[in-house]
Amino acid sequence: MILHLKNKVSETQAQQVAEDHDAILFQDNNRWIVVTSSSIKKPKKESLEFVEEFFETETDIQLAGRKYLDKVRTVKWGDVEIGGNSLHTAMMAGPCAVESESQIIECAEYIAGLGISTFRAGAFKPRTSPYTFQGLGLEGLELLDKVRQKYKLSIITEVKNLSHAKEVIDVADIIQIGAKAMYDVSVLELCGQSRKPILIKRGFGSTLQEFVQAAEFVLSKGNPNVILCERGIRTFETKTRFTFDLCGAAYLKYHTNLPVVLDPSHAMGYSYGVPDLAKASMAFGCDGMLIEVHPTPAKAKSDASQQLDFSTFTKLITDLKIVGGAVGRKLV
Amino acid sequence: MILHLKNKVSETQAQQVAEDHDAILFQDNNRWIVVTSSSIKKPKKESLEFVEEFFETETDIQLAGRKYLDKVRTVKWGDVEIGGNSLHTAMMAGPCAVESESQIIECAEYIAGLGISTFRAGAFKPRTSPYTFQGLGLEGLELLDKVRQKYKLSIITEVKNLSHAKEVIDVADIIQIGAKAMYDVSVLELCGQSRKPILIKRGFGSTLQEFVQAAEFVLSKGNPNVILCERGIRTFETKTRFTFDLCGAAYLKYHTNLPVVLDPSHAMGYSYGVPDLAKASMAFGCDGMLIEVHPTPAKAKSDASQQLDFSTFTKLITDLKIVGGAVGRKLV
Amino acid sequence: MILHLKNKVSETQAQQVAEDHDAILFQDNNRWIVVTSSSIKKPKKESLEFVEEFFETETDIQLAGRKYLDKVRTVKWGDVEIGGNSLHTAMMAGPCAVESESQIIECAEYIAGLGISTFRAGAFKPRTSPYTFQGLGLEGLELLDKVRQKYKLSIITEVKNLSHAKEVIDVADIIQIGAKAMYDVSVLELCGQSRKPILIKRGFGSTLQEFVQAAEFVLSKGNPNVILCERGIRTFETKTRFTFDLCGAAYLKYHTNLPVVLDPSHAMGYSYGVPDLAKASMAFGCDGMLIEVHPTPAKAKSDASQQLDFSTFTKLITDLKIVGGAVGRKLV
Amino acid sequence: MILHLKNKVSETQAQQVAEDHDAILFQDNNRWIVVTSSSIKKPKKESLEFVEEFFETETDIQLAGRKYLDKVRTVKWGDVEIGGNSLHTAMMAGPCAVESESQIIECAEYIAGLGISTFRAGAFKPRTSPYTFQGLGLEGLELLDKVRQKYKLSIITEVKNLSHAKEVIDVADIIQIGAKAMYDVSVLELCGQSRKPILIKRGFGSTLQEFVQAAEFVLSKGNPNVILCERGIRTFETKTRFTFDLCGAAYLKYHTNLPVVLDPSHAMGYSYGVPDLAKASMAFGCDGMLIEVHPTPAKAKSDASQQLDFSTFTKLITDLKIVGGAVGRKLV
Repeated sequence: MILHLKNKVSETQAQQVAEDHDAILFQDNNRWIVVTSSSIKKPKKESLEFVEEFFETETDIQLAGRKYLDKVRTVKWGDVEIGGNSLHTAMMAGPCAVESESQIIECAEYIAGLGISTFRAGAFKPRTSPYTFQGLGLEGLELLDKVRQKYKLSIITEVKNLSHAKEVIDVADIIQIGAKAMYDVSVLELCGQSRKPILIKRGFGSTLQEFVQAAEFVLSKGNPNVILCERGIRTFETKTRFTFDLCGAAYLKYHTNLPVVLDPSHAMGYSYGVPDLAKASMAFGCDGMLIEVHPTPAKAKSDASQQLDFSTFTKLITDLKIVGGAVGRKLV
Repeated sequence: MILHLKNKVSETQAQQVAEDHDAILFQDNNRWIVVTSSSIKKPKKESLEFVEEFFETETDIQLAGRKYLDKVRTVKWGDVEIGGNSLHTAMMAGPCAVESESQIIECAEYIAGLGISTFRAGAFKPRTSPYTFQGLGLEGLELLDKVRQKYKLSIITEVKNLSHAKEVIDVADIIQIGAKAMYDVSVLELCGQSRKPILIKRGFGSTLQEFVQAAEFVLSKGNPNVILCERGIRTFETKTRFTFDLCGAAYLKYHTNLPVVLDPSHAMGYSYGVPDLAKASMAFGCDGMLIEVHPTPAKAKSDASQQLDFSTFTKLITDLKIVGGAVGRKLV
Repeated sequence: MILHLKNKVSETQAQQVAEDHDAILFQDNNRWIVVTSSSIKKPKKESLEFVEEFFETETDIQLAGRKYLDKVRTVKWGDVEIGGNSLHTAMMAGPCAVESESQIIECAEYIAGLGISTFRAGAFKPRTSPYTFQGLGLEGLELLDKVRQKYKLSIITEVKNLSHAKEVIDVADIIQIGAKAMYDVSVLELCGQSRKPILIKRGFGSTLQEFVQAAEFVLSKGNPNVILCERGIRTFETKTRFTFDLCGAAYLKYHTNLPVVLDPSHAMGYSYGVPDLAKASMAFGCDGMLIEVHPTPAKAKSDASQQLDFSTFTKLITDLKIVGGAVGRKLV
Repeated sequence: MILHLKNKVSETQAQQVAEDHDAILFQDNNRWIVVTSSSIKKPKKESLEFVEEFFETETDIQLAGRKYLDKVRTVKWGDVEIGGNSLHTAMMAGPCAVESESQIIECAEYIAGLGISTFRAGAFKPRTSPYTFQGLGLEGLELLDKVRQKYKLSIITEVKNLSHAKEVIDVADIIQIGAKAMYDVSVLELCGQSRKPILIKRGFGSTLQEFVQAAEFVLSKGNPNVILCERGIRTFETKTRFTFDLCGAAYLKYHTNLPVVLDPSHAMGYSYGVPDLAKASMAFGCDGMLIEVHPTPAKAKSDASQQLDFSTFTKLITDLKIVGGAVGRKLV
């Protein structure tokens, strides 16, 4: 249950209401909001005088749910706006990882040249083996900061765990919480203290319920700028890297109030399928898309098989604009 | 390995070649074709004189594979043609099941009125409980035959097992092998003896490899008219009925020579998601689409939650034509 | 809902009750039993005079459910009895497939020599590729009939589809419905007309609910001798052939009244793991076990990697008896 | 590839060898060990003079693999020893979470009274919703420290992320890395700097390969005391909480050199199945077992459905000793 407290309610009173319901308290635009367990269906008598409005919920999809807010939230960064009434689809493109200064500059220049405003690249790579490239770390983050200024790009980059979360939150325009970090409550809560957009990637073994509940950790700390990203789940099928859960994305669009971004590159794992899946994602009506592009995919230090080369990506952007037009969406 | 035998080779000689390789023999346009296990990489010496050409394969995706035929096969029924160079996407629409004469006539009249040429409805329903509606059986098949003639529609309907396979093959224009019958070798082989189009639905627990191998059972009996249909696989996510494997469909487009049809209705299980998934399927570039439509979905005897009502479907057809236009495809 | 009709009720009256509830009717020990959809919770007024007792059920797990019968049913074949109060665990051992007369005789002699009473081997093999060994068919069935008589063994063998179901039902002592045939309603119903034990293998993509509902197709035709067999489900893990669902088996023991047999050989797919899994199965308290044994596993025409050789199996039998002793179970 | 450097090799030389192979370096019993990517198959020429022995590996299962060390490593804590030649199975029992001082004392007293040496309970609970009990945190850790001293119990408790990893490593006798933290490289590396036993729980969406690679992060920091714990994976079956992957555990026993612990409580999620699964685990031959026990399960603040009550657990311990006897294993 979500309680909107009355305007005049003091912090001490708000804390009392939260305590009485064993609940979470945060402030949004000067209004105190209390979120209890979904098993509580009505405010306690002693709190009634402080409550302006309350929203009963069936599950712990609360602040993110359509019962609470029956439209898509607007999320903004740089000159970009998605969700709300915008009918925008944000393109977030770039290489899997920051590999070197020359590579990142080559990519950034290319991406900026296409008129794309948001650049993706990972500095902290969550690899499953200790014996492979783990990302450039802080050095990579600095390179991203550099190209941002030089090419007027917004940067989305990933937090893999708490060890570097603050640094990433400082530098990035959009903070990406990786699929493997989706359950890291401390990272989620730290992101909740920021007001920057937080893009949460669905864990490949995570249910939609758990996925949206990860967003609740951020939202209930007072950061309303959360984006959900479907990037493929793990199933019995191994001919492709993951299984792109477009049904799940449809569920998220229908049942939550958060913008939905799709990542066909990670779902597919092979560049040959990415353009068709990207066009499908656009016609589906996603609020954004993550696509991996690399100057020489075969030489990439991670995810070599799934990154598009420049010519394929340039063609894709043209196609996506046309498909976007067919469904009333603008690529931004 | 696939062997194309020389034109002059006699049936007896062809049988000898097949026997020597413990292989399958069939005739295609007067040419004898022999298919061995993929573990055999070269024709035996004693057969060489009969062999015109041979194709080594890595797995038992042989006749369906791109190594054998590097384009999409053309499949035709009624006035419809898909695959090949057509850039057509066939719409196959109708209710889940034949429920009564009045229901099937109402549907068929509506579908024909939209200019759609192919009508779907099941007479033999593969239900998982004995205590629910099992379909009208032969009576349903007769009703389908009736509306076909009255409304000049092509009919696609399902075989659930061997008990009624011949009857369905006789009546249907496209024979659908249901997801639960995908491993029924006797049904597959019977379909291989026909020359009608066979649409095989992927079992919800079946790998892509097994799925294409099911097609091989039909192809290796000499029926080249096989269509693959992705309709959702079973995963840990249960908020939607199944998980639509669009990555898998991309794999099939890239690695096989068979047309690929998509079924968003069964994948999603809820009507709210079907239009977005259908538009995604069109932009993805599928060769056909199965959509469930019912005059009064809430009263449907099976799959009530996923069938579209007429007004939603009419709007969808308009949208699909526009999206089709954006990717150079025509809805037929 | 299950209705037990009164003793004096005539067939016509019983049919009327069934019709009034759109239900299934069968006779068990001269008693008419009617099973309705589980959505019906009370007998109709006009039927009340014929009803002796009724059992409400929540789902379509009805005749197999603990709400209907709160103990494990006894199932017998040859001298073997499992379930009930027996605390017996039946060993069903033999090769994957009947490959030749000499192979099957060598196996049968060995199995009989160990004092094992039930022999397994497949004559109709449900293979996923047309280009591999499909089993010896009727010839294999005849060989099984032969060794049964010669070595006084009971035979369990598989039906893969309707094309040979009658022949297998005639010859086998236990009819195995394979994982890929679990949804074949016509085969299930045919088995329901027999009174021989029917062992249903869970489809690797089938939920427990669907699995038990497959048993309902047999039970509701009047055959009470149904055994459930867990043989591994398909998951994202591919280092082993399948994933052995022992949690699911625990669910079946707790919620159904049918004996539960386990098949570690198919679940694991590799002989190295079979003995540990078989001992686990025994300590778990299964009513039976299927184990694949072959004179020369490496030369087996199917499932070569998972079949035990004779010396490993002989040792395993010794171990299983000891583990059985520890949990109060006898290997039969 | 793993390189054992010669005894006389200096730290500088060792670092040079590591750098030349873009590899990881650590010291084990005064010996320098270098681990390269598994794609490197031979030491470089310039390093040969420093190399005493090297081990080629096919995948990044290296230090944990049987190719490197063909026996189970011994891991010790308190008076307990598992792995090696011990044939010991360690019982780690206790409630899901530390809920209060009285609850934890009641549990610890009971567990110690049964002669069990290792006590489990979580202070930092990795919950998926922010609106539920998150554990007592540091206060819980202090309570665990207290009962350890009072009842002479060894403590196993969980790290959920980096925010409290040092504190847990300080207090616990065995550090448990939870299923949701399995990919947290910073936590793994921190544990690698300790010499305490690290029990890694398999992520419910993690492949066996990724699971063992998580262990490699710890091992390659120089901590050889790693234990693998299978606790159920997420599959399409939802009647039970997870699917217990005993085939996977068999794989781990065969292919790795790490002790394998099983957790039937989390896999099953329902207390009714836990005793049978625990007996199965014992007969399977696991090196340890985690079982949840609570004085009043129905009132537990987390995992209420799966915790055993005291009388069920007392009976289970008796049974496990008997089953252990049957397979030559001792419960410690």
